[in-house]
Amino acid sequence: MADQEDTNTWGSTSWTRLSSLRQQSPLIQCITNLVSMDIMANTLLAAGASPAMVHSILEIPEFTPHTQAVVINVGTLTPDWLPAMKAAAAVANQLGKPWVLDPAAVGASGFRLKACLELIELKPTVVRGNGSEIIALSMASLGSTKGADSLHESSDAVEAAKSLAKSSGSIVAISGSVDFVTDGQRVIGAHNGVPMLQKITATGCAVTALIAAFVATDQTHAFEATASALSVFGLAGEIGMGLAKGPASLRMHLIDSLHGLDQETVLQRVKITSFS
Amino acid sequence: MADQEDTNTWGSTSWTRLSSLRQQSPLIQCITNLVSMDIMANTLLAAGASPAMVHSILEIPEFTPHTQAVVINVGTLTPDWLPAMKAAAAVANQLGKPWVLDPAAVGASGFRLKACLELIELKPTVVRGNGSEIIALSMASLGSTKGADSLHESSDAVEAAKSLAKSSGSIVAISGSVDFVTDGQRVIGAHNGVPMLQKITATGCAVTALIAAFVATDQTHAFEATASALSVFGLAGEIGMGLAKGPASLRMHLIDSLHGLDQETVLQRVKITSFS
Amino acid sequence: MADQEDTNTWGSTSWTRLSSLRQQSPLIQCITNLVSMDIMANTLLAAGASPAMVHSILEIPEFTPHTQAVVINVGTLTPDWLPAMKAAAAVANQLGKPWVLDPAAVGASGFRLKACLELIELKPTVVRGNGSEIIALSMASLGSTKGADSLHESSDAVEAAKSLAKSSGSIVAISGSVDFVTDGQRVIGAHNGVPMLQKITATGCAVTALIAAFVATDQTHAFEATASALSVFGLAGEIGMGLAKGPASLRMHLIDSLHGLDQETVLQRVKITSFS
Repeated sequence: MADQEDTNTWGSTSWTRLSSLRQQSPLIQCITNLVSMDIMANTLLAAGASPAMVHSILEIPEFTPHTQAVVINVGTLTPDWLPAMKAAAAVANQLGKPWVLDPAAVGASGFRLKACLELIELKPTVVRGNGSEIIALSMASLGSTKGADSLHESSDAVEAAKSLAKSSGSIVAISGSVDFVTDGQRVIGAHNGVPMLQKITATGCAVTALIAAFVATDQTHAFEATASALSVFGLAGEIGMGLAKGPASLRMHLIDSLHGLDQETVLQRVKITSFS
Repeated sequence: MADQEDTNTWGSTSWTRLSSLRQQSPLIQCITNLVSMDIMANTLLAAGASPAMVHSILEIPEFTPHTQAVVINVGTLTPDWLPAMKAAAAVANQLGKPWVLDPAAVGASGFRLKACLELIELKPTVVRGNGSEIIALSMASLGSTKGADSLHESSDAVEAAKSLAKSSGSIVAISGSVDFVTDGQRVIGAHNGVPMLQKITATGCAVTALIAAFVATDQTHAFEATASALSVFGLAGEIGMGLAKGPASLRMHLIDSLHGLDQETVLQRVKITSFS
Repeated sequence: MADQEDTNTWGSTSWTRLSSLRQQSPLIQCITNLVSMDIMANTLLAAGASPAMVHSILEIPEFTPHTQAVVINVGTLTPDWLPAMKAAAAVANQLGKPWVLDPAAVGASGFRLKACLELIELKPTVVRGNGSEIIALSMASLGSTKGADSLHESSDAVEAAKSLAKSSGSIVAISGSVDFVTDGQRVIGAHNGVPMLQKITATGCAVTALIAAFVATDQTHAFEATASALSVFGLAGEIGMGLAKGPASLRMHLIDSLHGLDQETVLQRVKITSFS
């Protein structure tokens, strides 16, 4: 499946997006779960973006218009946070800004699933989750009542992702041993990354925020920007893994590596392949 | 007091518990304070468990039944969080799952003390705190109005812990230069650990969560599981301290070491002694 | 402008304050944003203080009197947090304890600006922000309706800081490539620090908390304590930078270095100069 020409093109695309991000330093509003705030903000800063954790509904009308993208993550959702999430998504839509949804643990409860379906109605530019989250969301979007279990590999979820992308109009990304990105027609596999990233809390949340920052630099190519963000984050993880002794040092080296990534490394090591 | 045979047995017990944890990867629901979320989740992941920070009362009835244990920590308690804590404890009891209470800074206010006493009524499997927290809670449980000061050594608190264990039916653990665990009759001292752990925020919260994960693997021996969790965490701290230059690098090396702990190290270095 | 004699005096002042902090271990209550809690608590611990993240209004009347200083940071402000902030500031005032305000992102919304102005009315001992925050706050305090943009260098903000200090009675500190501190008459520049600190989330919040801890050790010289805290934190950053490979390792080495700072290093390397 891997195609050398493809990979070189994707390396170049990824580097262009990362360079733009560093030059533009887009302001990314994050309405995210309580566990992820530190690593999400530090990931955005290391990549060159400006994070803003602003979640009061009173501030959305004034603040959100100044941002370049919005991230919404339901990881520790309570009912009092939901109106601000919807309001920020609505402002983003109204002003033509990208916004990215992370349906973290969407299968945890009916409350959370309903909230995610309401957010999907607000047409996120990108949705990123793991395989079981995307399957649960896709099935619920289609009105299926069949339960989703949590053991799905990301490759099993590709069909669900394509369905969700078609019904929602969003780019859909699935994290796993290989990450997949689809717009409903095209599917790519992003191969960078290391298994130990799963032993660090909120790395999925962090990469969702990175996707928002990448898309902010080229909203008209959200599919390519999403794939690039996943690859760049995974590549930083690979470089970090070469220095790490365990998950906590991997976390440190990952962020350091993301900050220091150079053109040659990105061109040589980004590995994205067509998949359909 | 130290007994070589004892120590060898405890090393074996600790290794068995850690191995089971790695194999079973229990899902641990954490309703915890805002400061501790990152280190708690990362400690659980490094040990082999699956953390879930879910604190909305709307999700308790559906989500808590899927967990293997619940941790409740009142470190940044506000009234809106308390109903979910009680609901999760009630579900755990109803379904025969273990749950662990961390009465963080219970002496800070009457509000917090009352909340902890209400939680104690819901029969936690284990209660873990520092000496002054356990003394304050034990005295309040017994209806004493005598104030507790915050300078108690953990050894001074052993009698208070025994009283609390008897009145509540919980295993009670006291963190300090030596950790103590009692079921009201037996008392053991867990000697692993280093003083600099106190210079890292929320290490106490993290070890409470680790206790929940250990107990989840063998609920019928909660006393042994609690002692094992304290020792394994302390041992990871000792190994981390050998590489650390200060509290922040200790935090990193502690988590890396917890992830990498092997049988030989646990068997040789866990130090738990009988104390009564 | 730099004056060698000055610098030596300031080195001695900074060391005296840090030594006192380590000896007294003041209890610092932090009502702070959700992103900053981990690094703020760990910074305070590394410096020798005792952090307490207590934000329930129910606990203020009982708990705040036991603290040596209060920090209030509006970085993730929602309306439900504001009453506790005001209550804690009021208790601090009533009991003659210092309290420090961090008007994080005060320009984000009218809601946040209004909240900060209400807090300023409660007479913080010190206010610390970046240049644009201090300008926005100073102009709003003076009733100006002219907008503040976010690109001001800290040096541009000195006049705004002097105005704010005069009108509020607070010491005002501005973080930037050089930090400035003023009481409305005197102005000093604190030169320690490295640019990469801006690539780590919540370092500004952390230094605000450190100011509170320093001021807690000598409330009658809040101006000197504020300058000392900024220098000591910046110096720890400089030492950390010598070991760092990027922002995540800088964060670790910064906190380790703060914990390990010795007299000789402080005396030789603290660089504070008069500026008016």
